[in-house]
Amino acid sequence: MNLRIPGPTPCPPEVRAAGASPMIDHRGEDFVSLHRRIVSRLQAVFRTRNEVLLLTSSGTGALEAAVVNTLSPGDRVLAVTVGPFGDRFAEIAEAHGAALTRLPFEPGLPADPASVDRALAADPSIRAVLLTHNETATGVTNDVRSISRIVRARGPLLLVDSVSGLAALPLETDGWGLDVVATASQKAWMTPPGVAMVSVGPRAWEAHARARMPRFYFDFGRAREFASKGQTPWTPAISVLFSLSTALDRIEREGLDAVLDRHRRIGARTRDGVRSLGLRLLAEGPHASDSVTAVRAPDGIEVSDLRRRLRAEQGVVLAGGQGSLKGKVFRIAHLGWVEEREIDEVLQALRAVLASLGPRKG
Amino acid sequence: MNLRIPGPTPCPPEVRAAGASPMIDHRGEDFVSLHRRIVSRLQAVFRTRNEVLLLTSSGTGALEAAVVNTLSPGDRVLAVTVGPFGDRFAEIAEAHGAALTRLPFEPGLPADPASVDRALAADPSIRAVLLTHNETATGVTNDVRSISRIVRARGPLLLVDSVSGLAALPLETDGWGLDVVATASQKAWMTPPGVAMVSVGPRAWEAHARARMPRFYFDFGRAREFASKGQTPWTPAISVLFSLSTALDRIEREGLDAVLDRHRRIGARTRDGVRSLGLRLLAEGPHASDSVTAVRAPDGIEVSDLRRRLRAEQGVVLAGGQGSLKGKVFRIAHLGWVEEREIDEVLQALRAVLASLGPRKG
Repeated sequence: MNLRIPGPTPCPPEVRAAGASPMIDHRGEDFVSLHRRIVSRLQAVFRTRNEVLLLTSSGTGALEAAVVNTLSPGDRVLAVTVGPFGDRFAEIAEAHGAALTRLPFEPGLPADPASVDRALAADPSIRAVLLTHNETATGVTNDVRSISRIVRARGPLLLVDSVSGLAALPLETDGWGLDVVATASQKAWMTPPGVAMVSVGPRAWEAHARARMPRFYFDFGRAREFASKGQTPWTPAISVLFSLSTALDRIEREGLDAVLDRHRRIGARTRDGVRSLGLRLLAEGPHASDSVTAVRAPDGIEVSDLRRRLRAEQGVVLAGGQGSLKGKVFRIAHLGWVEEREIDEVLQALRAVLASLGPRKG
Repeated sequence: MNLRIPGPTPCPPEVRAAGASPMIDHRGEDFVSLHRRIVSRLQAVFRTRNEVLLLTSSGTGALEAAVVNTLSPGDRVLAVTVGPFGDRFAEIAEAHGAALTRLPFEPGLPADPASVDRALAADPSIRAVLLTHNETATGVTNDVRSISRIVRARGPLLLVDSVSGLAALPLETDGWGLDVVATASQKAWMTPPGVAMVSVGPRAWEAHARARMPRFYFDFGRAREFASKGQTPWTPAISVLFSLSTALDRIEREGLDAVLDRHRRIGARTRDGVRSLGLRLLAEGPHASDSVTAVRAPDGIEVSDLRRRLRAEQGVVLAGGQGSLKGKVFRIAHLGWVEEREIDEVLQALRAVLASLGPRKG
């Protein structure tokens, strides 16, 4: 199967094999050295000197952790949303008692930095901004750098969902002053799901000291205390960490710049290929994501049929649309373990299935 | 290495190998059939017709889920604690705003059912009882059956931490009327850590509808909605679930009664062996756990030295004490993938290291 959904992504054979290593004591020396090797190499990809905490959860758990560790019930929060994952981040904050202002953008468009500035100017009591780096549901990459400048100038915390961004797209945690950045193992990290990684900067730690949203499992304070000993407070997903460490070896060998170049090259190739099939992209322009491409469903074609036939006849697994985009788009993922060959196969498969679906319309 | 800590426990080779299977779409048919196979066999081990929800977290996450899904801030809760894991359950409830009454028992002793009855009689406003099935830190198994009768008669919910109990020790979720039961993959399930399993009964669902503790990632409502489609709301730890399914094959083949018999037999053999070395058990009596044995450190022996030498010289990994028991006990785990041979090796290793440590005292 050519698994081209935006997570879980395929894992290289050595990454899978590492996950099958014999179990170890999570309080023993072998674990401590595993933990240290993982964290130092994560810091290199996050481009940060901040603590990077390892959580046993999906990316959604990491977004919840970002919220409950930095905010108190009633705090005003600006949720910049360009799609369903931005909406989810907002919903998490709301569920924990934040007072939300939503700044939504149409699916396929990125967040407009000037609108963020206006929203912050209009309400100086906003304490945090929630921002999606790469909206997995629409294939849009936000201009985190420009938005971070605005947010830093205005003062609130900036909490960034980079679940499908980091290790595929450029992000400068320290250079851009991002207070919390969250990602998850099953995306560009080429690792099975189960581990989320979160960088926590100095301003986020200050906020943590005052934040009163209830928390225990996801508490950054406990996580930091154990991380300083090379451990986690609760039993971590050790087999996933074995895999993650091996995937980080691979990223280190290829080199971060080369990894990001590869994603840029393959993102462009995917979009060109889709256009050459006569299909339309949901996101056109510099904000089109280099980790996932959302394609508008051609008239008269059911996305569910298309996906079923791609899978059954061509061994290609694509994702459907989420939320309001269900039935309107399908998505081709190109993050993590991907080369030109896999995308060319997807394009050939699409061409074949669309050709055979075409005549049916007549 | 003979890994004899009470989780993560060793995983049989086929369980580890299954975890290295190629990644699949968590929204596809293969996942749905994996999910259904896992849940139906979990129900057989939990002895329940309740929903059993799969969470991506450690056992601690499942305990948090049990609390936040059934309670509101200010609710009165009776925390029956016989050791550090009971204390943790209490701390989780307190962190989320429960009004706690603690009913602690000395380390090594089980909870006294009559004391639970008196505590409930003294405060009819108590809405839930937190109870540890098997206290991993002290090697004590509580009489959940007797306590459940009392709790049911008085009316509160009964939330049970069976993290190191289920699949090793008898527990009747439906027969005993347990409202929530939580366990985790890295214990008697012979699976790597990363997945927690929680059964939620009808009274817990009623409580869920009214419970106002903030929750999102761990919300049972979302989990139930997706479970009905054979999915999870957030990307699950798929490789761990591959392993869990293979481990459940193994439990099914052996038969649950045989699995419980094996734990009973090996628990007794461990305690007999420890006594025959002239060592003292922390828990003596019918409440001594058949999944983990806590041994009092002999006078003049540093637990950390003993464990270091067992590991370095004998390839045996034991656990130390937790909380107030640190330095006072060490623990031998015998849950999950364990036969007489592994315990005999532990006892031989202990004999050898204690003999060589002995003369030092003189």
